[in-house]
Amino acid sequence: MAPALRPRTPPNILFFSLLPVAAWLVLRPLLDPAPPLPALHASLGFSVLALLGALYLVPALGNTFVHANLKGRDLLKIYDDPVPESLGLVCASIYILLLILFIPFAFSDFFNREHDSTRKPREGLVINEFPHHQLSVYLSSLLSLLIATMLGFLDDVFDIRWRHKLPIPIIASIPLLIVYYSEHGTTDVVVPIPLRWLLGSLLNLGPLYYVYMSLLSTFCTNSINILAGINGSEVSQALIIALSVILNDLLYLPWPFGFRIPLPLHLLGRPGVEVGGVWSAGMAYGSRLLVERHLFSLYFMLPLVGVCAGFMFHNWYPARVFPGDTLCYVTGMAFAVVGIQAHFSKTLLLFFLPQIFNFVLSCPQLFGLVPCPRHRVPRFDADTGLLYPSKAGFKNHAPSRLSALTLHVFSSLGLVELTEDPKTHAITETTNLTILNVFLLRFGPMREDSLVKVLMGTQVAGSVFAFVVRYGLAGLVYDGNRR
Amino acid sequence: MAPALRPRTPPNILFFSLLPVAAWLVLRPLLDPAPPLPALHASLGFSVLALLGALYLVPALGNTFVHANLKGRDLLKIYDDPVPESLGLVCASIYILLLILFIPFAFSDFFNREHDSTRKPREGLVINEFPHHQLSVYLSSLLSLLIATMLGFLDDVFDIRWRHKLPIPIIASIPLLIVYYSEHGTTDVVVPIPLRWLLGSLLNLGPLYYVYMSLLSTFCTNSINILAGINGSEVSQALIIALSVILNDLLYLPWPFGFRIPLPLHLLGRPGVEVGGVWSAGMAYGSRLLVERHLFSLYFMLPLVGVCAGFMFHNWYPARVFPGDTLCYVTGMAFAVVGIQAHFSKTLLLFFLPQIFNFVLSCPQLFGLVPCPRHRVPRFDADTGLLYPSKAGFKNHAPSRLSALTLHVFSSLGLVELTEDPKTHAITETTNLTILNVFLLRFGPMREDSLVKVLMGTQVAGSVFAFVVRYGLAGLVYDGNRR
Repeated sequence: MAPALRPRTPPNILFFSLLPVAAWLVLRPLLDPAPPLPALHASLGFSVLALLGALYLVPALGNTFVHANLKGRDLLKIYDDPVPESLGLVCASIYILLLILFIPFAFSDFFNREHDSTRKPREGLVINEFPHHQLSVYLSSLLSLLIATMLGFLDDVFDIRWRHKLPIPIIASIPLLIVYYSEHGTTDVVVPIPLRWLLGSLLNLGPLYYVYMSLLSTFCTNSINILAGINGSEVSQALIIALSVILNDLLYLPWPFGFRIPLPLHLLGRPGVEVGGVWSAGMAYGSRLLVERHLFSLYFMLPLVGVCAGFMFHNWYPARVFPGDTLCYVTGMAFAVVGIQAHFSKTLLLFFLPQIFNFVLSCPQLFGLVPCPRHRVPRFDADTGLLYPSKAGFKNHAPSRLSALTLHVFSSLGLVELTEDPKTHAITETTNLTILNVFLLRFGPMREDSLVKVLMGTQVAGSVFAFVVRYGLAGLVYDGNRR
Repeated sequence: MAPALRPRTPPNILFFSLLPVAAWLVLRPLLDPAPPLPALHASLGFSVLALLGALYLVPALGNTFVHANLKGRDLLKIYDDPVPESLGLVCASIYILLLILFIPFAFSDFFNREHDSTRKPREGLVINEFPHHQLSVYLSSLLSLLIATMLGFLDDVFDIRWRHKLPIPIIASIPLLIVYYSEHGTTDVVVPIPLRWLLGSLLNLGPLYYVYMSLLSTFCTNSINILAGINGSEVSQALIIALSVILNDLLYLPWPFGFRIPLPLHLLGRPGVEVGGVWSAGMAYGSRLLVERHLFSLYFMLPLVGVCAGFMFHNWYPARVFPGDTLCYVTGMAFAVVGIQAHFSKTLLLFFLPQIFNFVLSCPQLFGLVPCPRHRVPRFDADTGLLYPSKAGFKNHAPSRLSALTLHVFSSLGLVELTEDPKTHAITETTNLTILNVFLLRFGPMREDSLVKVLMGTQVAGSVFAFVVRYGLAGLVYDGNRR
């Protein structure tokens, strides 16, 4: 085994310093006086456990995976040694097991009603009467996550062709949809102000809402899966999106202090819009429903950040383990779950801007306009150690008129580099249509770890932009922020 | 591929005749006048779908499994061709997917309250107000089944050593226990009459009840898994136990006619006990809770019978596919789920008599008193085509005094055949301690399909005995039948 491939061992000090922290966070809700949001406290503790689990179990189980033939070659390296594949399964298992063990903290009376007397009324209002039927929603989310894990692992074992696996997340979202239906979930959407003269302020989408939900999970899952191929790319996307969702959730929690952020929106010519309004007690304006929804989201996102951070330690360049499709499926499904169940799917999609860009860019290859090789990852040059854009060639036939037009448009936008036949001027080759190749085209060849940092920077920039749009511009087309 | 190993194709006529039946059963509850138990109607329809799914998907997917290296040699045949292994995964997937799709039928108002006016009051009383929190119980059961499936499949892929996998079902039962705890499930048990002077009529087991539940799932799962090794053995056990549970459930449904079965219990010297009492409207005596519980059990058992029957067609001697551990795990977990959630775990254990016998018999090998080879299946003799008892030898050391004593006791009961050293009279070999080897010892060598028929006959006899004990003798130590 190449020395570069020895499992990375996290320092023991981390384990012995974080374990007591986790234990304290989990057990703190049992002590008097109980903290204002006991379940959130425990959730934080479980997230630390998730981090520790991923940090220490992933390297320990790597060999088992290699023996079970779950291994792959790293295409962008000089060595040929097998790298354990599908370790996302370990992350998913830790994640789901912790979410199951968390159930009593969120839903049992023992942790919630017992401390009534000692709690301040405002901060306690949320958890004390956590509606019991929410448990069904939580359980159906777990079922969906588990099915996504299962299907991701089956994909890794049976190596399903990617075009066949596009609909797989729909299967995983069935429990979500079925329970949503059985629980009489609302299928209304708020109509933007400019369209209200036509549609009214609430529009009941009916069955279309279910189509929307299953498409959302399909998108979240696959869009992470197709922005893959370099060390750390999948898990870093998941990590940054999860952190963005958490930041958004925190805005809705009952903070003990009021704050107000005046954005310079008068520059846009709408001086009258008060952006975000008074941010006292969070953006929830005291709405218990909103606080509950965002707590639900936090319960799913905090441990996800834990496993992703732990896994990233081992998946970082040069990767000691690969995530497999399992990680993409389970993280994508987790985002879909919180977007749907906590009703902020539009905001969620804003955090997926790089993925949306990558998906739109990929469409000509996904839908057969442009040849799609088995791997579209950048090309590794062993001499320089740098990555270059990879190419897809029109081997058997010249591009159709539509393909050529699309590629010329992309080319004029600087998104692809075309090679043309010097005689006929027909396109013979194009760089593959992924955001990673675009980065390499625009910023020049670079090392694999630089590329993943560019990707992460883009993801962060996308999230910043998303917050500006969500809490700045959205005020122009929606009234209030209660969506 | 040997001709004997070509997938068995079920006749097309079956598909085209059963599909309309299934469709009618599923859609019937939507038509006026609704049947008395609409969800049960739909459940029957889903079971037919489960049968069809297993019948047609198992042979279709066999090759995919072989390509993914999920294959095994049939140890008891003359040919060496690889047989697809772990096809229990297909069964489990069909089963769980159908159970998820069934949720609206059991729990949504659309299927239940809408037909109020047209329903006769007594027959409708059950479903109309199906308690909504039951959905959580149902979902946690699904989670446990899914985890059992996942772990079974992981076991097949990673080939976990059997001694390490004994506790796996405990992990799978966690959702069950956690939700039971969060929902404040009762932890009381009814005390038998002879012990009431000591313990009172109800005993609160508290945390011990959770230990009991997890042990029950461990037992149900592993006891099927260790009574394995010949074609059709796992699935036929599951099928017969499921049918027994269904028969038991049916006794508690509101039948439109009354009946009374006088068992000749006066022969036992207790003429005063009225066995079963008046069996009007089922054994539930109008108790809605009991009817609900047994309906819940039926929802899980009916589709299980469907997949098991379909799978058996392909797993029957000579087997075209193997179930893998996945099937044992998911079926065992399904029995544990209904036993726990519908509160008839004692009755359930009565249906496991052959498994209990096999487990007790196996203990000396499981716990290291007697050497335990990797496979304990009977030995196949290629010349005669018959199975003979397989043997385990004391190679390295003579048996300890305890081992020798145990084996001599078993030998005097006719359960093992010992080979002794002619000089020292020390035991050198014993037949393996499984019920299958006992059959071969008692009834002589036989063909594999005869042996599985003997096993099935024993299982049926055990169930008949179980019913006699449950509804005959139990009246001697318990009052009433409301457990």
